[in-house]
Amino acid sequence: MATESFTPGKLGMETLHNSLTDPSIASMNLLNEIADKYPQAISMAAGRPYEEFFDVKLIHEYLDAFCDHLRRDRGMDDAGVTRTLFQYGTTKGVIGDLIARHLAEDEDIYIDPASVVVTVGFQEGIFLVLRALRASERDVLLAPAPTYVGLSGAALLAEMPVWPVRSTEHGIDIGHLLEQVKVAREQGLRVRGCYLTPNFANPTGVSLDLATRHRLLEIAESTGLLLLEDNAYGLFGAERLPALKALDRAGHVVYLGSFAKSGMPGARVGYVVADQPLTSNGSDAGEFADALSKLKGMLTVNTSPIAQAVIGGKLLLHDYSLARANAREAAVYRRNLGHTLDALTRRLGDCPGVSWNSPTGGFFITVTVPFAVDDALLEHAARDFGVLFTPMHHFYGGTDSAAGGINQLRLSISLLTPELIEEGVARLAALIGSRLTAPR
Amino acid sequence: MATESFTPGKLGMETLHNSLTDPSIASMNLLNEIADKYPQAISMAAGRPYEEFFDVKLIHEYLDAFCDHLRRDRGMDDAGVTRTLFQYGTTKGVIGDLIARHLAEDEDIYIDPASVVVTVGFQEGIFLVLRALRASERDVLLAPAPTYVGLSGAALLAEMPVWPVRSTEHGIDIGHLLEQVKVAREQGLRVRGCYLTPNFANPTGVSLDLATRHRLLEIAESTGLLLLEDNAYGLFGAERLPALKALDRAGHVVYLGSFAKSGMPGARVGYVVADQPLTSNGSDAGEFADALSKLKGMLTVNTSPIAQAVIGGKLLLHDYSLARANAREAAVYRRNLGHTLDALTRRLGDCPGVSWNSPTGGFFITVTVPFAVDDALLEHAARDFGVLFTPMHHFYGGTDSAAGGINQLRLSISLLTPELIEEGVARLAALIGSRLTAPR
Repeated sequence: MATESFTPGKLGMETLHNSLTDPSIASMNLLNEIADKYPQAISMAAGRPYEEFFDVKLIHEYLDAFCDHLRRDRGMDDAGVTRTLFQYGTTKGVIGDLIARHLAEDEDIYIDPASVVVTVGFQEGIFLVLRALRASERDVLLAPAPTYVGLSGAALLAEMPVWPVRSTEHGIDIGHLLEQVKVAREQGLRVRGCYLTPNFANPTGVSLDLATRHRLLEIAESTGLLLLEDNAYGLFGAERLPALKALDRAGHVVYLGSFAKSGMPGARVGYVVADQPLTSNGSDAGEFADALSKLKGMLTVNTSPIAQAVIGGKLLLHDYSLARANAREAAVYRRNLGHTLDALTRRLGDCPGVSWNSPTGGFFITVTVPFAVDDALLEHAARDFGVLFTPMHHFYGGTDSAAGGINQLRLSISLLTPELIEEGVARLAALIGSRLTAPR
Repeated sequence: MATESFTPGKLGMETLHNSLTDPSIASMNLLNEIADKYPQAISMAAGRPYEEFFDVKLIHEYLDAFCDHLRRDRGMDDAGVTRTLFQYGTTKGVIGDLIARHLAEDEDIYIDPASVVVTVGFQEGIFLVLRALRASERDVLLAPAPTYVGLSGAALLAEMPVWPVRSTEHGIDIGHLLEQVKVAREQGLRVRGCYLTPNFANPTGVSLDLATRHRLLEIAESTGLLLLEDNAYGLFGAERLPALKALDRAGHVVYLGSFAKSGMPGARVGYVVADQPLTSNGSDAGEFADALSKLKGMLTVNTSPIAQAVIGGKLLLHDYSLARANAREAAVYRRNLGHTLDALTRRLGDCPGVSWNSPTGGFFITVTVPFAVDDALLEHAARDFGVLFTPMHHFYGGTDSAAGGINQLRLSISLLTPELIEEGVARLAALIGSRLTAPR
C-alpha cells in the first residue's frame, strides 16, 4: 500500500482544493479582519443595503401576501398552500412567474417564466452558469478588471479561468475585449462568455453608456459570446438605461438577478434568466435554464420556498415593481451619493493627484490617489484615522497588487447617514493629506 | 481566428459540463416524468416527509420564537434582531449554537458551535465537502452501492469519482472497503473519504450494526480515511444506535445534518460538523469547518437567516430536541413501515423468489424480485397497475443497469396512509404476480 503523509484527524491545506489558498480568498478575510478589529471606525467599506426600513413585521406580511396569492391566483386549497411552503418544491422555484412580471414592469424585459431559475442569491446563479459553461480546460471567461469578488469566487470554485478586460469610464474597453477573444481563440481556447455589470458596477460605480451596450450585443452576435449580465444595482440610479437583456433579440444575454439590494439580503434569493435554446445532436433540448436547473438539483435541490415566499410577497404587495417598492431606499442612496461627492469636492477638490468618478447611482465611488493603497494603509486608516474603505487592488483577483488598482480605493455609501458621510470623508481627507505631506 | 461551431443564440449540450449528460441525471428526470404522467398512481416512490402536521402558522411561530431568543438569550435590541434576519449574515450561519445543543440533546454528539457550517440543506453541505476534498485528479471517494442520488449528483458537480463499495445487510462490506482503499492507493490515488448513511439509508433502508460502526472508526484511524456521515433518517427508528460522530474520538467523522425530514424541507437548511484540525505548512490553520465556510462564501454567501430562523425557532420551541418535536411523525413512519411489511407478508409471503428486508425505521424498504426491474417495467406498473416505485438500478450511478440492483426496487412509506399502503402493495403484488406467471 502506497504510503500517504497523514496525521490522524488532521487535514493539510495543501491537500484541499486550490481555491482555498487563492490570494483572493485571503484578501477578503483580511478585509473582514481589519473591519472586525476596528469596530469604531466609520465603514465606507461595507456594500450592505440601508437598514432603516427593515422591519420583522414585513416578513410576516410578505409570507401572508404570498399565501393569499397561492389561494386567489393559483386556486390552491390550504393543503396546497402549506405544501408549497413546507415541502420540497420544483427546482426552478415557485416565483418564476412573479419575477417575469417584475422584469416586464421594471426593466422592459419580457420572458417566459419557464426561462427563470430561482437561485440562492446571485452567487449560486453565477456558479451554476459557470459550472455549466466550464466543460473542459479550453474554456475561459472574460470579465472587466476590476471585477466583483463574487464573480472571482464562483470562477475559482468552477475552475473557470477569468481573463481580464480593461475598464474605461464607459465600463469596458471594447478593443481590448475583441483582442482578448482573438488571443484566446488563437490559443485554441473557447471564450464562453463575458461577465458585465452594466449599471453602477461593484467596485467601480461605473455604468456602460447606451452605445457600449449596443456594441456589446453586436459583438455577441458576431462572435457567439454569451453576455452574463449582473444587474444588482440597476434600480438605484437617477438615470435608467436599458438592461442588456432588454436589448437582446437573439438570446445572447444570460441575465443574473439579485434581490439582495432590492428585496432583502436575508432572503438569499436571486435568479437567472437563461432563455438560450439548447441543442443536443442537432435536436432541440430545451433551454439553458433547464440545464441550470439540473445542476441546481445537484447543488441545493431548490431554493427555500419560504425565502421565495418572502420575496414573492414583497413583489405582490408592490404590484411587481421593485422600483416603487424601493422608492425610499433609492432616495437615500442618491442622497448619500450626492453628499459623498459633495464632501469629496469640499475636502479634496484642491488636492493634487486626487480624483474620483461621479456615478449617478449605485453604492460605490472610485477614488484615485497619488500613492499606493495597500492593506497596510488600510490598517493605518482604521487605527489612526478611524475610517474604513476597500483598497481597489482586491478587485483585481488578489493575485498581485501590481495587477492594477494600487492607486485606487472604493468608497461605499449605502449603509451611512449624511453625518457619518461628512465625518468619514473628513477622516479620509486627513489620511490623504497626511500621505501627501509625508516625507518620501 | 480559429473557427468555432456556433449557432447564434444556441448552445450545444456537448459544449456544456459533462454532469449534464451523465446517465444518472437522465434517469432522475425519467422517474419524475413517469410520476408526472401518471398522477393517479399510488406513489411508493416519493421519499418526501409526511404532511399532516404541516401548518403555515408554525412558520410565523418559529420566526417569533427565534426573534425572542435573539432578544432574551443574545441580548439584542430590535435593530439587532431585524439586522440578523434581513441583512447579510456570517457565512457559517446564525444557529450553529442551537444545532450544537440539538446534537447534544438528541445524538450525544458534543461539539463547539464554531465547527458547524449551516448549509442550504444536506445537498450544499456534501458539495462543499467534496469540492474541498477534490484537489486533483488523484482524489476519489468511496460510497456504498447503491447510494443516495444526492451524493452522486454532488460528486458529478465536484468532478469527484465515486468508487462503489459492496453493500451487505449490515450496510457495507468491510472487506471490500479495505480492498478498494488498497487498489486505489496502488494506483497512486488518494481516497479522500467514505460516504455513509449509518441509519436507515436511502435507498436500501439498511442500517449499520454497532460492531460495523466501531470497525469503520478503527479503519478510519488506521487508514486516514474521513468518514462522511449522512444522518437524515436517524430520528425515525424504533432503535437508536449511536451516530459515527458520537463514537468519534479523533476527528475522523465529518457529520452532515439535514432538517429536511426533522425540520421541514421548505426551509432548505442543513449543516456540516467539520471539527478536523487544518494544518498549513505544519502550523495550525483552524478547522475544516473554516475551509468549508470559505467555499460557501463563494457558492451561496450564507444560508438565508430567515430560513435558519424558522429551523432555529422549531429547535427552541422543543427544547432543542427534534426527537421530541417529531414524536408524532416518527410514530406515523413506524406505523407505515409496519403496515407495509405486514402487507408484503400477506400478499407476497408465498411468492417464490420475492423477498424484502425489514428495516426498523426510516422511509425505505428494498424488495427483491426474480425478474428485471427496468424503467419499462416501472411505466407498465404506473400505467396498467396504478402504482409507482423506484427501480433500484437508478441508485447504482445510472451508468449501466447491469451495474447492480436490476432485480430490486425501493418502496417509500413516508408520505402514505395505511389505506394507500394496503392498496399500493396490492397493486404491486398484482404486478409481481403477472410477471411470475407471464410466459418466458
